[in-house]
Amino acid sequence: MALIVQKFGGSSVADAESIKRVAKRISETRRAGNDVVVAVSAMGDTTDELLELADEVTPIPAPRELDMLLTAGERISMALLAMAIKGMGFEALSFTGSQAGMITTADHGSAKIVDVTPKRVREALDQGAIAIVAGFQGFNRGTGDITTLGRGGSDTTAVALAAALDADVCEIYTDVDGVFTTDPRVVPLARKIDRITFEEMLELAASGAKVLHLRAVEYARRHGVELHVRSSFSGEPGTVVYDPEKGLSEGEHMEEPIITGIAFEKSEAKITVAGVPDVPGKAAQIFEVVAKTNANIDMIVQNVSAADTNLTDISFTVPMGDGRRVVEALEAEREALAYGSLQYDDQIAKIAVVGGGMRDASGVSAQLFRALYEAGINIEMISTSEIRVSVVTRVDHMEKAVRALHTAFGLDAEAEATVYAGTGR
Amino acid sequence: MALIVQKFGGSSVADAESIKRVAKRISETRRAGNDVVVAVSAMGDTTDELLELADEVTPIPAPRELDMLLTAGERISMALLAMAIKGMGFEALSFTGSQAGMITTADHGSAKIVDVTPKRVREALDQGAIAIVAGFQGFNRGTGDITTLGRGGSDTTAVALAAALDADVCEIYTDVDGVFTTDPRVVPLARKIDRITFEEMLELAASGAKVLHLRAVEYARRHGVELHVRSSFSGEPGTVVYDPEKGLSEGEHMEEPIITGIAFEKSEAKITVAGVPDVPGKAAQIFEVVAKTNANIDMIVQNVSAADTNLTDISFTVPMGDGRRVVEALEAEREALAYGSLQYDDQIAKIAVVGGGMRDASGVSAQLFRALYEAGINIEMISTSEIRVSVVTRVDHMEKAVRALHTAFGLDAEAEATVYAGTGR
Repeated sequence: MALIVQKFGGSSVADAESIKRVAKRISETRRAGNDVVVAVSAMGDTTDELLELADEVTPIPAPRELDMLLTAGERISMALLAMAIKGMGFEALSFTGSQAGMITTADHGSAKIVDVTPKRVREALDQGAIAIVAGFQGFNRGTGDITTLGRGGSDTTAVALAAALDADVCEIYTDVDGVFTTDPRVVPLARKIDRITFEEMLELAASGAKVLHLRAVEYARRHGVELHVRSSFSGEPGTVVYDPEKGLSEGEHMEEPIITGIAFEKSEAKITVAGVPDVPGKAAQIFEVVAKTNANIDMIVQNVSAADTNLTDISFTVPMGDGRRVVEALEAEREALAYGSLQYDDQIAKIAVVGGGMRDASGVSAQLFRALYEAGINIEMISTSEIRVSVVTRVDHMEKAVRALHTAFGLDAEAEATVYAGTGR
Repeated sequence: MALIVQKFGGSSVADAESIKRVAKRISETRRAGNDVVVAVSAMGDTTDELLELADEVTPIPAPRELDMLLTAGERISMALLAMAIKGMGFEALSFTGSQAGMITTADHGSAKIVDVTPKRVREALDQGAIAIVAGFQGFNRGTGDITTLGRGGSDTTAVALAAALDADVCEIYTDVDGVFTTDPRVVPLARKIDRITFEEMLELAASGAKVLHLRAVEYARRHGVELHVRSSFSGEPGTVVYDPEKGLSEGEHMEEPIITGIAFEKSEAKITVAGVPDVPGKAAQIFEVVAKTNANIDMIVQNVSAADTNLTDISFTVPMGDGRRVVEALEAEREALAYGSLQYDDQIAKIAVVGGGMRDASGVSAQLFRALYEAGINIEMISTSEIRVSVVTRVDHMEKAVRALHTAFGLDAEAEATVYAGTGR
């Protein structure tokens, strides 16, 4: 008998019919003799509808009250799910984040989990009941107030519960069959990945893969919680995310492939500070100004200084939403920073090729550059980690580039993948 | 500076616009220098919509989960109301029933308040904030579970908070101008009552007047909480419900009128057990059978035994929803009870004439019978209390009877009342 944590997202519980289907799946896991704990998101578009209501009531809703409002969403889905399961003859009890012991910081809207004390969840399991826990929400001990973990927090709830309860596996149910070598909507020959390491999954998630939240993967890695990303529709095995040092709970350990997957995103903008005096400390000065805006800097490239002018160009990418703030901050400090000009460019895409096997293989970068060159695609920035090579291209070339790389690295499947309407969120 | 508790029902917070209007009214009370605590119901039809969802998911929802589900309703309205008030520049904090210390029994769906410990509400007031409390909901200490007080429980929440906080007045905002001498939709010349005693209000509420819940009035009387029932639309003074021994907080004490108001309802059915042997203990035997069904018996009439047969008829009324259960129980015991026949009649109406002055006046019943006789209306059952006379008539005659009595007892106003679409719920 195993202890299994299952997470169902909003699209899996969008209406009464979906809730009954999910209840059936949970009941089957219980019938098979397992202890089951479920983390569930708000139904379908509930969160967006509540946000819209808040917007109609006041332009800038108080964060504490916004959390109070949004947590009504999972309260509805978890109660319906619990009563549906009970209707199928299994014991079930629903718990709010607070009742399930999800203790967080007091940062409304983006609280961090500081402790998980699932006493009532354990008691429910001991009584033979299935525990249904509200995803996304927590409780701050100092203020006594309800908090939320931010968008996608339900994945984190599931992983945190799995860690605290020492679960055998944490199953993340979604509307796709698992993690793919790349987005099947862009590359029809994308393949489902059977096994992927935490490290690779982190790089993919950080580079734009949407199926799992970065934060949940980080939490899972830190606590050694094996994840199984799978479809709530098909019942087929999905993708297991695991720690290679710990090994897999089931099946054999396999050689890591050189390239596991390709992620991409077009939500970043490139800012270039041109004509910067090439003196020590200048870059630090620039990034201190950027840091004050709280913008999330991703890639940074500094061009070699032109020997005759002793001036250099520094480029970096930030999420588009932060772009304007960064440009304004840099313009305000123009005199102190003594740069020549500032360029803002949001017509870029970032493509990341990820694979644990890259560590032991040479020539990956060369192969990547050649593939893009042959496809006629210009590379504007490059950044690498131990198991990732990222490049920035024009946004118009993104899809072509992803397809070229998918083929060049031998990731193409023999047949096209079934593509669902959803995005795995 | 006074401490004022205000209660707003679902129709007062049905959409974003209504919420903003209510927020404005609350803010004005605060601006006038008062401490304000608000009890709020779920928005408009939210509760019914949630019940419908539950019904789609499973035929008989688990009561614990149903309470978890329904309490999402006030969570939404209270958070929106608090953020709307904050948007107007006043401090506001929303609290769930549990956070506000509404400690109840564990009876899901119809929990009773056993203690009110509004520590966080008091702290909010001390900080100068307006406290917005979820109506209708509570918390059981033994199980740690969320409970609901049953339909209309928000009135009780408001009254219980007012009692625990020793508030100066508890204002019940609704969609009518106050308590009327009778329903203005039936008698256009109905008058708003300025002042009414708890005792009279209890009799009216128990006899079908819908503007205030019986339970809330009982709680208010027991704890000496003066109520002010008023419109959330007009801002005009409404009806003050008070304890005559304590006197009014404002204005002069007045002589109680002989007749204060007329209530009526058509939601009861009459059951007649005919041909019952007129021997001691027979009635007790019958009502023991009825009691086992948990039906709520209202009026009971036993006809004088026919001397020649030594048989008697016993009639009583129960809510229609209980009718079938009672009939089945009586049929099952037919042999033991040895009655002749059983009649079920749901085409009846109950009309109650209420007035504290009745105690010191004679001839009220005679006046009532004459008025109905002159209107050509037959009386089927009669029951009286110290300050009430109730009669049962055919349901078809109900409105005619109410109008005749309203005129006969001098309650008609000089002009017609404004009638709103709502019912005060």
